[in-house]
Amino acid sequence: MNGKAEPAGAVLVLGGARSGKSAFAERRIEEIGRPARYVATAEIWDEEMRERIARHRARRGPLWSTVEAPLDLVGALEEAPADMAILVDCLTLWLTNLMLAERDIGAESRRLTEWLSRPREARVFLVANEVGLGIVPDNALARAFRDHAGRLNQAVAAIATEVHFLAAGLPLRLKG
Amino acid sequence: MNGKAEPAGAVLVLGGARSGKSAFAERRIEEIGRPARYVATAEIWDEEMRERIARHRARRGPLWSTVEAPLDLVGALEEAPADMAILVDCLTLWLTNLMLAERDIGAESRRLTEWLSRPREARVFLVANEVGLGIVPDNALARAFRDHAGRLNQAVAAIATEVHFLAAGLPLRLKG
Amino acid sequence: MNGKAEPAGAVLVLGGARSGKSAFAERRIEEIGRPARYVATAEIWDEEMRERIARHRARRGPLWSTVEAPLDLVGALEEAPADMAILVDCLTLWLTNLMLAERDIGAESRRLTEWLSRPREARVFLVANEVGLGIVPDNALARAFRDHAGRLNQAVAAIATEVHFLAAGLPLRLKG
Repeated sequence: MNGKAEPAGAVLVLGGARSGKSAFAERRIEEIGRPARYVATAEIWDEEMRERIARHRARRGPLWSTVEAPLDLVGALEEAPADMAILVDCLTLWLTNLMLAERDIGAESRRLTEWLSRPREARVFLVANEVGLGIVPDNALARAFRDHAGRLNQAVAAIATEVHFLAAGLPLRLKG
Repeated sequence: MNGKAEPAGAVLVLGGARSGKSAFAERRIEEIGRPARYVATAEIWDEEMRERIARHRARRGPLWSTVEAPLDLVGALEEAPADMAILVDCLTLWLTNLMLAERDIGAESRRLTEWLSRPREARVFLVANEVGLGIVPDNALARAFRDHAGRLNQAVAAIATEVHFLAAGLPLRLKG
Repeated sequence: MNGKAEPAGAVLVLGGARSGKSAFAERRIEEIGRPARYVATAEIWDEEMRERIARHRARRGPLWSTVEAPLDLVGALEEAPADMAILVDCLTLWLTNLMLAERDIGAESRRLTEWLSRPREARVFLVANEVGLGIVPDNALARAFRDHAGRLNQAVAAIATEVHFLAAGLPLRLKG
């Protein structure tokens, strides 16, 4: 494997619900053809989520290994070998988990962006939801969540080498 | 009329509420200059909807005929002569109607995409709302609707020859 | 100062919550390097809003002066010298204020677009939220707001010389 052929860097895949973000990132990683780590930030609370994760798992090929990281995302990233592509799915669920666990969002975000800024042999794809394009939510918690999500997306986009916006399964390149 | 001059195919016009989707599709059809069929999927429940449809009707020119198809969209498409341009307005209301009537969304979606995949002399424009870019809805029905809408948009986009995303009346070409 | 070097015109900066709209507009004005007027349409109701405005103020440089215009936006625009760049932040809060004060939205929108259509030496940047890309709101007032916001964005975009859509701090040029 040759790290120079596939320059390292973070790739942010942004979009709405059911916009094809995960499938786009998975296709990109399948094209690279190297071992890949799926980092799931979902906490498997209910049947709805369990089915969604099973569908995702069935779609991915034999090169993939999976870890769950509802809170300690950076810990999971550090454990992946440097020549292994990574798919983080998704940042917005991670943020939800951090808020529910009353963690320091600013500190956790900085820890993530610092890790993403370090040189690495294989790429890291990060899926995130854009959640700020609807009507202003009624309650203060949802507004705070929306603000945190927007800031996290901006912070990751600022250091990413590529950013894509997905709609109806089609990517629009915002950066890179 | 010459079918070759205007190659057939589905054109998906995606966007938010009041983003100019219908007006964009209508302008495109007016430019073609051939007879056109407006397929309205709205059920005229209340005064608000009645006024909206009347405004749409007033905006369109004399080449247009209108049919209402709240549920049997493919039936309405099959009835239109093959050399007639069609505007479906809109897929998202059709999906709402299917869910309220407890129809099989997967089967109806496949029926639509199969019809859209067949060769046809004149183009079919389909307006659809992107609804997945706000905060996750509280209730499971709204989340299911959002998932269905996203999947339907992806399925139509995959077979469309052109896809446009509208914002503030301005189109952004995603495909074609 | 040379008005020809920096052609006048309205620049619409559209996007979601925390998408970097204001920062983008501020950077553009800082690059121009001439005195600038920040027209805040926020009514300072609560601590949350007060903090947001203080953060905005701290980010801007010494060339800026600030006025508050929760309702009489065009009055505030008319008072700014013609060679002064203007940042209106934001149209969507202004619309909220107009609705709460039960003003005539159509008349106020026309007053704004008429003023923006006049020749002027320095540019006017207008920040606005796209709010129509989530699930249809439950209540009629929120739906009416969404419709007004979409129409206002379309009206301003139609006369603007540039329109940008921001996501995760990255601009996508829709016009100009």
